[in-house]
Amino acid sequence: MSAHTDRRHVLIVHAQPEPSSLTRSMVNTARDTLERAGHEVMESDLYAMGWKAVYDAGDFPDRMNTERLSFVQESGHAYAGGTQPADVAEEQRKLLRADLVILQFPLWWFGMPAIMKGWIDRVWAQGLAYGHKGAGNRHRYGEGGFQGRRAMLSVTTGGPAADYGPRGINGPLDDLLFPITHGVLFYPGMQVLPTHAVHGAGRMDSVGVQTALHAWKARLGHVFDEAPIPYRPQNGGDFDERRHQLLDEIRPGVVGFAAHLRESA
Amino acid sequence: MSAHTDRRHVLIVHAQPEPSSLTRSMVNTARDTLERAGHEVMESDLYAMGWKAVYDAGDFPDRMNTERLSFVQESGHAYAGGTQPADVAEEQRKLLRADLVILQFPLWWFGMPAIMKGWIDRVWAQGLAYGHKGAGNRHRYGEGGFQGRRAMLSVTTGGPAADYGPRGINGPLDDLLFPITHGVLFYPGMQVLPTHAVHGAGRMDSVGVQTALHAWKARLGHVFDEAPIPYRPQNGGDFDERRHQLLDEIRPGVVGFAAHLRESA
Repeated sequence: MSAHTDRRHVLIVHAQPEPSSLTRSMVNTARDTLERAGHEVMESDLYAMGWKAVYDAGDFPDRMNTERLSFVQESGHAYAGGTQPADVAEEQRKLLRADLVILQFPLWWFGMPAIMKGWIDRVWAQGLAYGHKGAGNRHRYGEGGFQGRRAMLSVTTGGPAADYGPRGINGPLDDLLFPITHGVLFYPGMQVLPTHAVHGAGRMDSVGVQTALHAWKARLGHVFDEAPIPYRPQNGGDFDERRHQLLDEIRPGVVGFAAHLRESA
Repeated sequence: MSAHTDRRHVLIVHAQPEPSSLTRSMVNTARDTLERAGHEVMESDLYAMGWKAVYDAGDFPDRMNTERLSFVQESGHAYAGGTQPADVAEEQRKLLRADLVILQFPLWWFGMPAIMKGWIDRVWAQGLAYGHKGAGNRHRYGEGGFQGRRAMLSVTTGGPAADYGPRGINGPLDDLLFPITHGVLFYPGMQVLPTHAVHGAGRMDSVGVQTALHAWKARLGHVFDEAPIPYRPQNGGDFDERRHQLLDEIRPGVVGFAAHLRESA
């Protein structure tokens, strides 16, 4: 009985068409490691699925307003009325079944490949990922349609780790990814784990790959026990409730992403 | 004679399919304002062009390695050999003709719509936007294939400006866009102007729209005279030349995006 108590559902979304790529090796290692631990793994292989990346009128076969296209309004209408495209509804179903969502991608121009951004654009529907409970911006950042699940970015970069360090030329990786970790994942209520990064993928030899996969396997061994990034929830007492500004007494004088982290206990 | 001395070429890239949207009104206002000032305006209306957003094997009809797909290698090979897809080559031609590039888009999940990210992914080729002069990472951030032109983001957001303020709940807009302004535009050598933002687009009445368009028109009146964001060039003496770290004496102890700005004189 206890063997099944800890069985979790994991969704791995990934964006790399080359089967022998490091990205795909990371996916295969994750699937294998998690399944061996007794978890159920779902996959969204966006390239293999031929995922439609572009969010457009085709996403709304049953328009509430056929004169003027408002993505926000039509998204809410389609989600509430069950008229979303089948591929979008299926991804939402997988997300809602998942206890952990892993987004695995190569960092392209300091963000997601377009096909994965298009997965977010289309699947993060109004009424689900935003406009939760029909209450506008009332429930977000720690609350929302994806509350109760964990999420993690797992990225590979071509360049060296130092370039993404605190004083590296690219800027710190965690800050570069804040629009995703905080803005895409925490916004609709997911608890976001620290990003897993493998640098130097451009020049990695087979020993490097094995080392990276070994580290990834080790990391996956405790993803359900790790503390998430301590982002401040909107309704947790750190923000002015109406104006959504950090209260004066919270990290006085600090601006930018650093102020969005709760100090560790 | 003098009337033509100041004639510049401007490329406006935009991503919104609804003709009556604020994004498209911003584009129309920009075209009109810039043309009246004697400039030549090129446009890339990504939705109308049916832009292929997904970067994949279809981008490399003449592969150097048909066994294993490496985007970096094939990109360099296709760019150097003139075997890129026609749509990609045409966008590069427009970029190289431009003195100013404006990216106009609605902020979707704190970034570009997927169709515009796919424009970057596909057009920013190796040998042009990175790997300049075949010298790896030697020439970037202030140097590179797009040196000599200016770039500016012009974004619309649904939410209120305060949410994007220094202590607002979303994080500061300039930090959220740093991966694009610094990582996408400054990296290949463009001088990046401060982002132009219109907030509250979700609930804007016609007076609000007219006010926004008026402010945009005024801003465009001096885009060729404005000082760009003072990002630190890689080879400008602020970074260790080999390790690409900020030198100890530059903003000692400061980490994150703030350290990447040169202090104003």
